[in-house]
Amino acid sequence: MNNFIFSNPTKIAFGEGQIKELANFLPANARILLTYGGGSIKKNGVYDQVVKALEGKTWFEFGGIEPNPHYETLMKAVELVKKEKIDFLLPVGGGSVIDGTKLIAAAVHFDGEPWDIMAKNKPFHSALPIGCVLTLPATGTESNGNSVITKATTQEKLAFGSPLVYPQFAILDPTTTYSLPPRQIANGVVDAFVHTMEQYLTYPVNAKVQDRFAEGLLMTLVEEGPKALKDPQNYAVRSNVMWAATMALNGLIGVGVPQDWATHMIGHEITAMHGLDHAQTLAIVLPAVMQHQRDKKREKLIQYGRRVWNLQDVNDDAVIDGAIAATKKFFEEMGTPTTLSGYGVNKDSIPKLVDMLKKHNLLTLGEHGAITPEASREILELAA
Amino acid sequence: MNNFIFSNPTKIAFGEGQIKELANFLPANARILLTYGGGSIKKNGVYDQVVKALEGKTWFEFGGIEPNPHYETLMKAVELVKKEKIDFLLPVGGGSVIDGTKLIAAAVHFDGEPWDIMAKNKPFHSALPIGCVLTLPATGTESNGNSVITKATTQEKLAFGSPLVYPQFAILDPTTTYSLPPRQIANGVVDAFVHTMEQYLTYPVNAKVQDRFAEGLLMTLVEEGPKALKDPQNYAVRSNVMWAATMALNGLIGVGVPQDWATHMIGHEITAMHGLDHAQTLAIVLPAVMQHQRDKKREKLIQYGRRVWNLQDVNDDAVIDGAIAATKKFFEEMGTPTTLSGYGVNKDSIPKLVDMLKKHNLLTLGEHGAITPEASREILELAA
Repeated sequence: MNNFIFSNPTKIAFGEGQIKELANFLPANARILLTYGGGSIKKNGVYDQVVKALEGKTWFEFGGIEPNPHYETLMKAVELVKKEKIDFLLPVGGGSVIDGTKLIAAAVHFDGEPWDIMAKNKPFHSALPIGCVLTLPATGTESNGNSVITKATTQEKLAFGSPLVYPQFAILDPTTTYSLPPRQIANGVVDAFVHTMEQYLTYPVNAKVQDRFAEGLLMTLVEEGPKALKDPQNYAVRSNVMWAATMALNGLIGVGVPQDWATHMIGHEITAMHGLDHAQTLAIVLPAVMQHQRDKKREKLIQYGRRVWNLQDVNDDAVIDGAIAATKKFFEEMGTPTTLSGYGVNKDSIPKLVDMLKKHNLLTLGEHGAITPEASREILELAA
Repeated sequence: MNNFIFSNPTKIAFGEGQIKELANFLPANARILLTYGGGSIKKNGVYDQVVKALEGKTWFEFGGIEPNPHYETLMKAVELVKKEKIDFLLPVGGGSVIDGTKLIAAAVHFDGEPWDIMAKNKPFHSALPIGCVLTLPATGTESNGNSVITKATTQEKLAFGSPLVYPQFAILDPTTTYSLPPRQIANGVVDAFVHTMEQYLTYPVNAKVQDRFAEGLLMTLVEEGPKALKDPQNYAVRSNVMWAATMALNGLIGVGVPQDWATHMIGHEITAMHGLDHAQTLAIVLPAVMQHQRDKKREKLIQYGRRVWNLQDVNDDAVIDGAIAATKKFFEEMGTPTTLSGYGVNKDSIPKLVDMLKKHNLLTLGEHGAITPEASREILELAA
């Protein structure tokens, strides 16, 4: 196990009815900005629950944050924050709303062009406090310091992270996920699965707790994901998916172990160029990374196949083949194709995607830094 | 899954050499009290490492905190804290030193007799901040708000808990555990194992993440515990034991699930009356609780046997029998007998132990509140 520092200050309130406790988590006398996305929270009753819980509070609202939240939109929210002297941000929605609100929090006091926080890794030294209500289990952003932002004008999709933007609290009510379209719940399950894999499927460092926890999350998602699609109002299933997604990226399973993230980096380029959902790109790239890196990831691939998929073959290579096949089958069972062509993306795009990786200086991906643009090309060809 | 609130603010610094980072975690200009136990940290070099890391700081020291820390001793430390205007507590040691220091933290500003915090559940409204260096993986106290204190004069052993006494940080360097006597490392493994079981072996509420995490900790302790005894300087093994013990009682695996704790409650009486180590009492009581409660715990006993011990028998009762036998065998392999007689405690003690449970008003133990004093007597007889 490698040395590590771990800290996660987010307070989680989990379960049906927790939104009504919102006022207990908010600072007294706060000037609150409620942020949200395309308005689904107005249809499913979540907006009304939040408004009721905010009774007596001073609050404003900013809707219309897009999936893959747009920098341009978020800068409009920053104006509103300044104008109304907002001092607490309350995103209500999925990963994009929370990610976008993290940038709002960081940008308000930022001296300069906030895009540089992502593009030039410029540091910021304060951020408005955030508390969130999560309605789409997927990214883990409700209890981490990460955010991914898209500049619509250039189609660039870049990430930033800081301990300053951890939400102070996160309210997770599984019943708010009942009305999600199947594609969004499928995306969330695939996303959480791949987050876990990025921190697990590398090389062994004898970190037994982290391995067992990661395998526990993977098994939970494999068991519950298809049920979440078939039986949308099954509270236990939605609870397990929601908690697994949070645990998949709150930092815990990644402490003291190598991490990969090549699948995410390659996937981001596909989203930026072709508009595929984030999770769709992960479902395309991960199985190809597993295949392409099967020698470097050999020991963990065998462990993954035997423990998560219960593959009993005495032949290790058969276990690896079975593990990759089972992973693809699982994604497809979730309604998420695992090839570029499955989304109508032609092979001709591959050189352009590799060019974008080069442009973004993503030349040494993976836990060994060994995935060069040439290797990324081979991976994308395996995924064609 | 039941509704829950979860928050754990403790920052963990894990790994060899982390003690030298101590100064980075301490508040500037703090007046620090270094607390410790019987002096083993002076023999194994940890004291010297801490003193070096405190260079330039204002600090005092208070040694001699006993295993099962004595209220009377801790009150002497409170006097020192008041006299020297200490504003930060730095326990360096195992669970007893940290538990004891939590009471020091709570007692300093407490109006009245601090024993009432435990004996009468009297609330306290502030506590000195704590940061700790853990040298004995076992109790999880390094990142929770719990403490158990013993009054030497009456041999009473009582617990208290508060979010105010979570350590702000915990430094965990597995190499500090190399010099532990085998009995202490065995106790730590058994303690962490039983902490996990208290939160796991109840009745199913379909909390799949919590179940898988608990099983992961149990499997890790089963795999690594005996190796930790055989090969005391194996860094990977000591790391896994140390991290498993922290995760076993930092609150995470207990969220949203029923909890038992009957084994602990009955065990405390054995320690108070006969002076057995805490973990020894757990090794005695847990297998008897499993046997006595086998109908009420049936589903989880089967799951435990199949998943943790890989018992394949088609007959569920055979799996339960096997699971109880495997648990006992594991404790015994750790050098920890699983019967009262194994420690020379006679059957005649049982009525007296049951009287103490009654005296402490522990009349409805376990996740169903169904373990009456009569049931505790039967459990102790099974453990004779």
